[in-house]
Amino acid sequence: MKPLSQAIRPTTVIEPEKLRSHLGLDLVVISETFQHTGSFKFRAAYNVVLNRPESEFVGVSSGNFGQALAFACKLLDRKCTVVMPHNSAKVKVDSVVSYGAAADLINVNEISRVERLEQLREQRPDAYMASAFDDRLVIEGNSSLGDEVIGLGLDAIVVPIGGGGLISGTIEAFERAGKAIGIFGAEPAMANDAARSLKAGKIIPNDLEPQTIADGTRTLSVGDLTFPVIQRGVKDILEVSEEKIVEGLKLYFSHANLKCEPTGALSLGAVLQYPEQFRDKRVGVVVSGGNVDRDVYLSTVSV
Amino acid sequence: MKPLSQAIRPTTVIEPEKLRSHLGLDLVVISETFQHTGSFKFRAAYNVVLNRPESEFVGVSSGNFGQALAFACKLLDRKCTVVMPHNSAKVKVDSVVSYGAAADLINVNEISRVERLEQLREQRPDAYMASAFDDRLVIEGNSSLGDEVIGLGLDAIVVPIGGGGLISGTIEAFERAGKAIGIFGAEPAMANDAARSLKAGKIIPNDLEPQTIADGTRTLSVGDLTFPVIQRGVKDILEVSEEKIVEGLKLYFSHANLKCEPTGALSLGAVLQYPEQFRDKRVGVVVSGGNVDRDVYLSTVSV
Repeated sequence: MKPLSQAIRPTTVIEPEKLRSHLGLDLVVISETFQHTGSFKFRAAYNVVLNRPESEFVGVSSGNFGQALAFACKLLDRKCTVVMPHNSAKVKVDSVVSYGAAADLINVNEISRVERLEQLREQRPDAYMASAFDDRLVIEGNSSLGDEVIGLGLDAIVVPIGGGGLISGTIEAFERAGKAIGIFGAEPAMANDAARSLKAGKIIPNDLEPQTIADGTRTLSVGDLTFPVIQRGVKDILEVSEEKIVEGLKLYFSHANLKCEPTGALSLGAVLQYPEQFRDKRVGVVVSGGNVDRDVYLSTVSV
Repeated sequence: MKPLSQAIRPTTVIEPEKLRSHLGLDLVVISETFQHTGSFKFRAAYNVVLNRPESEFVGVSSGNFGQALAFACKLLDRKCTVVMPHNSAKVKVDSVVSYGAAADLINVNEISRVERLEQLREQRPDAYMASAFDDRLVIEGNSSLGDEVIGLGLDAIVVPIGGGGLISGTIEAFERAGKAIGIFGAEPAMANDAARSLKAGKIIPNDLEPQTIADGTRTLSVGDLTFPVIQRGVKDILEVSEEKIVEGLKLYFSHANLKCEPTGALSLGAVLQYPEQFRDKRVGVVVSGGNVDRDVYLSTVSV
């Protein structure tokens, strides 16, 4: 069993001249698109499976966490079930199955994910119900990305926020290293629960899953464990328009040769929307992942 | 003035699980898509400009070498002129100009590139006429990529062949390190001058620029300096169909989150077409660059 540091692939650091001169900013791209399973989620999933004694894991995800959990279980020889909406993209279901996990397809009009998780918890009392973000092991796993970027000499770093797992890990890594830089969250304006929660000083969930193009952030709220870390460590949470997310995705393609998913373009979207925050600073933008439906990607880039 | 090793960006090594299991091969992707100016050509161009005393450089290129030479000249404070067909894609002309070089646009129906170069040689006797491949400094610059991959434990490596500059550098790096692995060239079947030359034991040029989708290999022949290196160091030159180049490009997108240009997909195309050559071997595939016209890319991936 490899320790986390040997199981993960190091993040990809890119300094794209064309994009930098286009923006007039000292931009450093930190890309997890080449991480195992194509997103940072593998860091968390592997750390959870490695450190839990259970022989079976259950996760709820139609996206990157499901694939990451499935692959981590494969590497560490555990059973894995991923609960997914029955109308999930076939490519995502196939990915989970290809890593050897069972895809538990539910009709979300008949049963909610939470209800299905309760059923599974009763049916399989020995399985570990893995949260995609609200778990100390998740935050700890994600902090390995923070560790890797501490030496880059950044003044600021922008990190996408969904459930808050990645930014919490980033904050804890910089705390551990005793380095103070500006850590910014980037959240879709139409899914701004974290920004609203930060202002209110308490968790305020979205009413419904917001249908932002950044589908990795369609969470109802940040977590009980991630929120206090965000409160103490974040400089600000920047609310990004759908338009700027798309512009970021397109610029990565045209000016940096980088294919990423819409959620991955959130950080650059934030820099595009609030450039004055990053003037004369060396700013890192975290690209959380690259997995995107082909037709969504092509139609977005071709606009 | 930075030495070459500090001026270049290290290559990006990717081990994409999904692509590896799709192929059933121990594949390592070595990508130059995030190199300065988006292709390996920067290694060569920088090494040329760094080691030549001239204050002005002239290159002929509608593609990656032009951009690389322009940027190298910018970094090293030299004058640069890039001769390009007047109907080159606007984005390529703009790139060259954005790096501070002059784009010398010629109508190739009225004057050939070679003739224009002769004119410039007479008009500017103090300028250095930079070849994209047939120059010891080019081969030496490209060999820095070979140096970077020697530690990867490869049994074989597949490298695109146009003028032969990259594969010559790769061969020389492995020779220098005293490591013998199988070095394969990948050449479009419809632009197979290097394969024919290797068989004949002498340089046999193409009659016309072959209109392969891998536009980085539309050279008439390998060079006088690169050919002997290829002859002594290459295990074989694999001729790749246009179909397999396209399949490679699409697989990089869907199974590795990698955006590359058609020429960059040649090595994977060779592995797809001749898998038996690489069974039970750890094989590195070099992705030479990522710069591709948006519409060409989108229409290729969407097929």
